[in-house]
Amino acid sequence: MNFKIARREFLNALNLSNRAISSNSPLPSLTGVKIVVSADTLTLISSDSNISIRTVIENKDDSNTLIVEEEGEIIIDAKYLSDITRKLDDDLISFETVDGTLIRISTGHSEYRINGMRAFEYPDINFEVNTTDPFELETSLFSEIIEQTAFACSDKDIRPVLTGVNFRAEGSKLYVNATDSYRLASKTIDLDRELRFNITVPAKYLMEVYHSITGEKSVTIAIDSQKIAFLFGNSIIQTRLLDDAFPDTSRLIPDHFTQTLVVNSRKLLNIVDRCSFIKSDGKNIVKLSINGDGMQVNSLNQAVSLNDGIDIISFEGEPIEISCSGKYLEDAVKALKSEEVVMCFSGELRPIILKKEGDDHITQLISPVRTYH
Amino acid sequence: MNFKIARREFLNALNLSNRAISSNSPLPSLTGVKIVVSADTLTLISSDSNISIRTVIENKDDSNTLIVEEEGEIIIDAKYLSDITRKLDDDLISFETVDGTLIRISTGHSEYRINGMRAFEYPDINFEVNTTDPFELETSLFSEIIEQTAFACSDKDIRPVLTGVNFRAEGSKLYVNATDSYRLASKTIDLDRELRFNITVPAKYLMEVYHSITGEKSVTIAIDSQKIAFLFGNSIIQTRLLDDAFPDTSRLIPDHFTQTLVVNSRKLLNIVDRCSFIKSDGKNIVKLSINGDGMQVNSLNQAVSLNDGIDIISFEGEPIEISCSGKYLEDAVKALKSEEVVMCFSGELRPIILKKEGDDHITQLISPVRTYH
Repeated sequence: MNFKIARREFLNALNLSNRAISSNSPLPSLTGVKIVVSADTLTLISSDSNISIRTVIENKDDSNTLIVEEEGEIIIDAKYLSDITRKLDDDLISFETVDGTLIRISTGHSEYRINGMRAFEYPDINFEVNTTDPFELETSLFSEIIEQTAFACSDKDIRPVLTGVNFRAEGSKLYVNATDSYRLASKTIDLDRELRFNITVPAKYLMEVYHSITGEKSVTIAIDSQKIAFLFGNSIIQTRLLDDAFPDTSRLIPDHFTQTLVVNSRKLLNIVDRCSFIKSDGKNIVKLSINGDGMQVNSLNQAVSLNDGIDIISFEGEPIEISCSGKYLEDAVKALKSEEVVMCFSGELRPIILKKEGDDHITQLISPVRTYH
Repeated sequence: MNFKIARREFLNALNLSNRAISSNSPLPSLTGVKIVVSADTLTLISSDSNISIRTVIENKDDSNTLIVEEEGEIIIDAKYLSDITRKLDDDLISFETVDGTLIRISTGHSEYRINGMRAFEYPDINFEVNTTDPFELETSLFSEIIEQTAFACSDKDIRPVLTGVNFRAEGSKLYVNATDSYRLASKTIDLDRELRFNITVPAKYLMEVYHSITGEKSVTIAIDSQKIAFLFGNSIIQTRLLDDAFPDTSRLIPDHFTQTLVVNSRKLLNIVDRCSFIKSDGKNIVKLSINGDGMQVNSLNQAVSLNDGIDIISFEGEPIEISCSGKYLEDAVKALKSEEVVMCFSGELRPIILKKEGDDHITQLISPVRTYH
């Protein structure tokens, strides 16, 4: 193996590859990146056996991105490879087999030597997806879906399926749902054709995809019974799916409301922020007291209390007092990404629904909590 | 108690006070800030019983910094008080006793209530210093002293006195020394008059002073047998001293050298940085091989090695190979704050001395380590 590669492109590719590296993998080869160099391409493969990433750097004409003297393949520890690539300060880095798995990585005066592992020790990872029906989403839309739903997943492993975001296609609609069983984020997308699937993708791997595709125009999504693959540029990220059935969330949203409030999002966020440090058992609870004159917000623990008020844009219905997690309220309002938020109530112990005025594509639900003050 | 205070000034004073707050103080009152309001001043006192801070906000004429309706004093939990002051969004904050130790802190619509503690529960802290001989240092000089020495203190409590910086005044010289017994940072200051003391100040409290005095022109230092006090603006920070005798460091610095190297500081730092991730047992060791042609730097562990070289400005003496901690070398070179660094050797197992060309006020010493490669 003997090649030169542009440092910046290689570092970008490594940064992507590292998203699949787990430092405490039981399989030693998975702490490394597999590098495969052919005449015209350098391929990096990484995996923690749940998420796998393949990215290719091409030998573009009239550029010095990749100059291959001798083909070859090797596994190199991902952490050291990134450190070395970061520390070298030339535009072009040389990789050369010294002896067996001993690799020299150098620029000018600086010469690192590192012991790799033979490429055949790397597990076979199948990047083919058994589907005839991949579909494409613009990056901006895909990112919005993730931003508006993934935060609502559970971060506890008690019910593993709740740590994932559910994607369900029926007809030409894509329904995206995430819930930790105390709140629900629900987004509907209009597809340009009919698709049918119902899968749940681990939220933490979706976040890796989310962070990887900034700068790309679109992402192509391919799904089979085992996995979901995201294709963009010269890269593919694939992750396993969560097996259990995702709960039916449609029945959680009340079909009629007794009160409807419209309030400025920024004002609501400000007042929730002013309560946020008032915690009991690590949780901040806010009590909202709403009538036609405005909204009072109250939060207290044993040491400190806040009474605060904001004006509202409109309110219909009988006055209501209802309490919920301040953090959940903040997350839901932020996820709507709208200047004004519509809050719908159907009783003090019934879910709070947050929506955008005139937009049924996004719904946030928060369960109320009982308070005794 | 009833007063209004400018939010920004109050927050700045709280940020200073918080430097003496320890969240796990055995004395409940010390988790709070003592607020004393008189007709013209508001005084904040905080302490963890080792470091104590007093800062005063004055009622300046024709400004709305402080408006006192009713004098009084109270202890308020430091964490909550900071949170409340940060969250309120008006220029002026009202403090008012509601009932006993219950305090209302408010602006406009927002009204916090917090239960304080009676001021007499706060321990008596004596901010008087029994000295007739305080002295003043410009902030820039004081900061430079700390930057050039404090990093070399020990961070382990095995020999407590080594966790402090030693200040020894003799005649009109101030000698400042810090050592963790593997390295030594030594700074000499010319005073404008004769002083005599020999004290060791905990480095972590010196860092609090260092961070507190940015923006001040100078700091006045007063020392007695028990403590050191730093006076600046309307504030005073005082800390206890370390009891044990500081080791005599003067005999550590060799009085003659067999090799002298002059090298560009930035180039040396770059090459040390390129080694920095190559660690064994958490430590990075660099081997320097120096002769008239240049300096080779080598570092290795079981997985990876670096061979690198830089050119030098001058070298006198026989070729030498010597190894030391890369982190210590980096710290010492940075502390010199000089474009070029003079490195003096007197044998592979004798201390390395780093100096600025033509400046005897600052000396850095690093113990070499044995290596077997």
